[in-house]
Amino acid sequence: MTAVQGVPGPLSGSTRVYAIVGDPIAQVASPRLFNTAFRERSADAVLVPLHVAPDALREVIDSFRAIRNFDGLVVTVPHKIAATEWVDELGPQARLTGALNTIRKTEDGRLIGENFDGEGFIRGLASRGQTLTGRRVLVIGAGGAGCAVAHAIAAAGADAIGVFDIDARRCRALVDGIKTHRPGLDVFEAKPDAQGFDMIVNCTSIGMRPDDPLPLDITHLAGGALVADIILKPVTTPLLLAASERGCAIHQGPAMLEGQIDAVLDFFAVRAQT
Amino acid sequence: MTAVQGVPGPLSGSTRVYAIVGDPIAQVASPRLFNTAFRERSADAVLVPLHVAPDALREVIDSFRAIRNFDGLVVTVPHKIAATEWVDELGPQARLTGALNTIRKTEDGRLIGENFDGEGFIRGLASRGQTLTGRRVLVIGAGGAGCAVAHAIAAAGADAIGVFDIDARRCRALVDGIKTHRPGLDVFEAKPDAQGFDMIVNCTSIGMRPDDPLPLDITHLAGGALVADIILKPVTTPLLLAASERGCAIHQGPAMLEGQIDAVLDFFAVRAQT
Repeated sequence: MTAVQGVPGPLSGSTRVYAIVGDPIAQVASPRLFNTAFRERSADAVLVPLHVAPDALREVIDSFRAIRNFDGLVVTVPHKIAATEWVDELGPQARLTGALNTIRKTEDGRLIGENFDGEGFIRGLASRGQTLTGRRVLVIGAGGAGCAVAHAIAAAGADAIGVFDIDARRCRALVDGIKTHRPGLDVFEAKPDAQGFDMIVNCTSIGMRPDDPLPLDITHLAGGALVADIILKPVTTPLLLAASERGCAIHQGPAMLEGQIDAVLDFFAVRAQT
Repeated sequence: MTAVQGVPGPLSGSTRVYAIVGDPIAQVASPRLFNTAFRERSADAVLVPLHVAPDALREVIDSFRAIRNFDGLVVTVPHKIAATEWVDELGPQARLTGALNTIRKTEDGRLIGENFDGEGFIRGLASRGQTLTGRRVLVIGAGGAGCAVAHAIAAAGADAIGVFDIDARRCRALVDGIKTHRPGLDVFEAKPDAQGFDMIVNCTSIGMRPDDPLPLDITHLAGGALVADIILKPVTTPLLLAASERGCAIHQGPAMLEGQIDAVLDFFAVRAQT
């Protein structure tokens, strides 16, 4: 590829429009990844970042409905759960997880939400040669991304899953949701403590800011554990740095997004043009 | 310039967003011209086309207000007059013409509308070596663009201006507006007939579709007349083709837009980055 990353094809009046909505927005990688992918597929499309606060989400989704050449939305923090309220239909993963990260508009104007974070996380791990089979995994954070990741880990063959969220009700809801779906699996509410796990996944935004604390206690982090983060920027969060210094394998955030681009483009029905 | 026309710089989460709103949208040239200009200025910005029907205009302008990294709108047919209702302030040309073609958002979130079509039309003519001095000009169409063009022609030294619009009230309002502003000028309601004029400007959208009739009777079009159109696509409208076949000089629509890009970028406060 000689194309600069993040550069779409030439824009014109017939270009189809996509966007990512989030708050904050500067850290998102979707404009880089999707515009590169559009160009690779020779699709006449562009994806732009839209900085949308929670109180404006509904208004922006309604205007997305009204703008005729605006075909799809990628949805990120903190909107993944709230956005499920404003679409017409949820796909299977969005129903399962109670969160979405993608909305497409059908030709007749209906909005369908789906969640590709779980698939993206597992594909991202696989692309780095990692599997879930037999692991005891601690998921930190039961928000939109945490729900998707925890359900996908449950589906991918983990032995046990502990979940922690500072909001105990949200944590219990996720644990109960996974138990309902996979009755035989060892799923439980956990403390924010690495002890006893051989894989840790941070699904909170703690680590985006330089002065953030670690999202869990790693005093007893096992040297052979795999530590993953879904934060995009910095790619090496303080948690990943600390884990790396202890000799743990680490897995960076962008892999989850890279692992879902093709699936999302198929969902958006963006096809290669000839 | 080696850059492909219409390609912005690489997009990221920190890219600032601009859009053009219109209905239809496929014909607009702003995505090509502005994205090329952004790239030339190394501005981290992109302009996308948004297909917005009249009944959705207010909703889209309100969401423009709410999206924090969305800094400016270019407004085209049929929204140039209606949009003046939904901004907080109008610049001098928008007040004069009763229409806007550009809205910028200030740092404190206010929306300011201004109209650069008149300046763009005169600059576009000048770039092709044409002046208005001493001319008898017939302006067809008293909508948003027609108002801007007619006022600019009045300011640029024309001897006389006839205005025709199928809506007689709208036509009279424009004639009265110019008379109020320039009491000595010969401005009048005219028929859609080229006879007696040495310059014709089509400011309607008649000519965008292949089976459109001509927007005026050119049976008595003088061979030395200058015939201009503001339609962007096709660049040679049936009117321009007919005029050309009679030996008249013609002036194509894109010149008006090209003539205002720099002024609009300055209004948007898009500065070259280093």
